[in-house]
Amino acid sequence: MEYITQPQQIEAESFAIIGGILAREFPDHRFADPLQEKIIKRAIHTTADFDWLEILHFSADGCEQIRQALRQGCQIFTDTNMALSGINKTRLAQLGCRIHCFVADPQVAALAKAQGITRSMAAVDLAMQQPGPRLFVFGNAPTALFRLLEICQGAPELTCPVVGVPVGFVGAAESKAALMASPLPHIAAKGRKGGSNVAAAIINAILYDLESQ
Amino acid sequence: MEYITQPQQIEAESFAIIGGILAREFPDHRFADPLQEKIIKRAIHTTADFDWLEILHFSADGCEQIRQALRQGCQIFTDTNMALSGINKTRLAQLGCRIHCFVADPQVAALAKAQGITRSMAAVDLAMQQPGPRLFVFGNAPTALFRLLEICQGAPELTCPVVGVPVGFVGAAESKAALMASPLPHIAAKGRKGGSNVAAAIINAILYDLESQ
Repeated sequence: MEYITQPQQIEAESFAIIGGILAREFPDHRFADPLQEKIIKRAIHTTADFDWLEILHFSADGCEQIRQALRQGCQIFTDTNMALSGINKTRLAQLGCRIHCFVADPQVAALAKAQGITRSMAAVDLAMQQPGPRLFVFGNAPTALFRLLEICQGAPELTCPVVGVPVGFVGAAESKAALMASPLPHIAAKGRKGGSNVAAAIINAILYDLESQ
Repeated sequence: MEYITQPQQIEAESFAIIGGILAREFPDHRFADPLQEKIIKRAIHTTADFDWLEILHFSADGCEQIRQALRQGCQIFTDTNMALSGINKTRLAQLGCRIHCFVADPQVAALAKAQGITRSMAAVDLAMQQPGPRLFVFGNAPTALFRLLEICQGAPELTCPVVGVPVGFVGAAESKAALMASPLPHIAAKGRKGGSNVAAAIINAILYDLESQ
């Protein structure tokens, strides 16, 4: 069997193929700016799903606030270990960022049980107790996103950037609509689609863009 | 904000909504058997993408061989840490299964460099040196799937079940077509779509089905 075995070559060819498909099948599509183009193409690269051309929503300051948080060596909080696993740790370390997923933390389990809330919600509560600039990355749990919005509604000084792309059929679309209607700087997905893989891809696209500058 | 905060209720409602959409929008669809139905619905649950109704391919003995491997306490080898992260560890431990992702193993990096192959391929070589029944779960790396097919072509006694759903634009569809044409017991995705999230969802569906028996 013959196949390409150079990862850089595979990735470069993948993006060239995506560009070709966009030119042929979506000739009228225009990206708002080069970073949004990189983010959207990486979401397509991760899913092979061209719906991503249309469903990401960028708040006016979303990309810039996420970039700034990463440059400042923020703490990143994910709602799943899958999202955490998918984000490039080498790049994070170079920027001095740390990344956490508290959902399986015993302290979070106890907090969730005591309060009758999901572990995803309790994980957000714990994240809000951590110092320094924060960045939330949600690919799975609508309740995490709802919780963060509740907290920030009551305390605007806690405002922080969010990648909000929970996938699913119960609460996911609603949680993302609430994020899009909020003042939080964000990148969000419209409708049901999303996922930990897309959440990680969005952060990686921004990390690689920072690296290339 | 009002939203459901009971994870079991969210999951049950999600599957009820998926069932309702299938009945309304795909009234002629018939599942081959109840386990395939569970696997396909969980892939849809994980992606909110109804293409999964049509793109999974099950070899005649695919589901049964994967079930048997899990019941025997096999070793599972994934191509990404994301796929590993997404699989239910509590259920694996109950069955005596262990799970590994060798792609970031220093031994694998050295092997890949020495041989001029991808780390994903070297990770398969290392997995083949591990004892006992094996199950491969690929959501990302066509080269891993190609490598496994090469090895088993030369040594039919090494045949083992495979979940083969690498996503992407370079080699992914070809690697899955090669798996579907092979004698390896498999669940594979046709075309470009796939991913670590779907790979994990397929294994989880089979784990939960085993649990319910």
